[in-house]
Amino acid sequence: MTYCLGILLPGGLVLAADSRSNAGVDQVTRVHKLALISKPGERVLAICSAGNLATTQSVVTSLKESLGSGDLQHDLYAARTMFDAANILGGKLRDVIDHDGRYVQPYGDASASFLLGGQIAGESPRLFEIYSAGNFIEASDRKCFLQIGETKYGKPILDRALNMRLPLDGATKLALLSFDATIRSNLSVGMPIDLLRYQTDSFAFHDYATLDEDNAYWRELRDRYADGLRDVLNNLPLPPQSWDR
Amino acid sequence: MTYCLGILLPGGLVLAADSRSNAGVDQVTRVHKLALISKPGERVLAICSAGNLATTQSVVTSLKESLGSGDLQHDLYAARTMFDAANILGGKLRDVIDHDGRYVQPYGDASASFLLGGQIAGESPRLFEIYSAGNFIEASDRKCFLQIGETKYGKPILDRALNMRLPLDGATKLALLSFDATIRSNLSVGMPIDLLRYQTDSFAFHDYATLDEDNAYWRELRDRYADGLRDVLNNLPLPPQSWDR
Repeated sequence: MTYCLGILLPGGLVLAADSRSNAGVDQVTRVHKLALISKPGERVLAICSAGNLATTQSVVTSLKESLGSGDLQHDLYAARTMFDAANILGGKLRDVIDHDGRYVQPYGDASASFLLGGQIAGESPRLFEIYSAGNFIEASDRKCFLQIGETKYGKPILDRALNMRLPLDGATKLALLSFDATIRSNLSVGMPIDLLRYQTDSFAFHDYATLDEDNAYWRELRDRYADGLRDVLNNLPLPPQSWDR
Repeated sequence: MTYCLGILLPGGLVLAADSRSNAGVDQVTRVHKLALISKPGERVLAICSAGNLATTQSVVTSLKESLGSGDLQHDLYAARTMFDAANILGGKLRDVIDHDGRYVQPYGDASASFLLGGQIAGESPRLFEIYSAGNFIEASDRKCFLQIGETKYGKPILDRALNMRLPLDGATKLALLSFDATIRSNLSVGMPIDLLRYQTDSFAFHDYATLDEDNAYWRELRDRYADGLRDVLNNLPLPPQSWDR
């Protein structure tokens, strides 16, 4: 399983992905689920992947190989807008599933999904979720985060606390707490976390990191959150002895 | 959708169920998902239901109609142990699915699952989850809570804070917070919450309540938890500007 999260803010984007891949409990390994494509100063595109690993690797590798080809159907360097880029990604996903799906079907599910976040000069940063069907939705000020993979454990904290008024750093903090909840509740999502903070109009990936379990900030964040939450819970009133009030 | 939660503690049991039933967004209604069966002083059994409403109502109603029949296959009054009772419930579920499943199949899914908690004189309180297949698992000191329905949103807070050393009231508080997280993140789970606190060896259902949105304790708990959590989040350190440390 996988957990990937994308957040769209006026100040930029936060994208994060876990690293665990498993085809059964005895085939657990670490993979890259966050791919970066950029032409510094002009465009940055970050792709998070969930689903069948052969499918997602095929999609991302093919798109990387098509960079600079000038082929409007496949070249992310040639996409005029992020909407065009989402179309290219969705189209490539359809191609791969058309090519491999029926061969894979006896053994499992070839489907996959993606988050695509980035900025192309002339536009604000944008964030999309590409479904297995190759169609997609876009984040907005009414729904500023998108998730793929094992999404539910990490959603309550985002529903509670995430909003478009947060600065990039505040949203990054919540993103990591959302991963903490998911990793605690689901063994198939695991460290390290690949994390990208992208500042609007910077048109470069300065701020990309891989956080493992020993990362000082990750440990401090988890520990202090756990302590703080414990105190809150302990201080909440107990239920009444009788409900007749 | 549905959310039901059962917690097993030395001090007793907590069982809770939401009340929303929906067959599409325009067929949303309130139903009872927590059924109580007792012979005061001798046995108490609480059944939480998830899944196809016709199936769960058929199972619970049939079991109620068989009470006192002396039929060892169907009479929960005749079950010698909670394990026997779980077998009766699982068997009845199989009967109903055998009877209705193929007729329902063209329109949807006839499957259902249950939590069964209670105590029969001579035993400690016990808690079971009955799967759609009619087989079941039992809670223990290593896994003291069981969930059915829309289980994931409400699991992180239980994974963090629930343990067998808690008193019944502390566990009830966490159960309600688990419902709060689920209701906030999923529209198909809704108030009121039917809530049972059962004290070990009381052999009676003194403490059963239906909490609606205006319940004073529910409001206080939600508000104070939201406030406390906001303070914790605000006080957590922001991520470093650079990860190179």
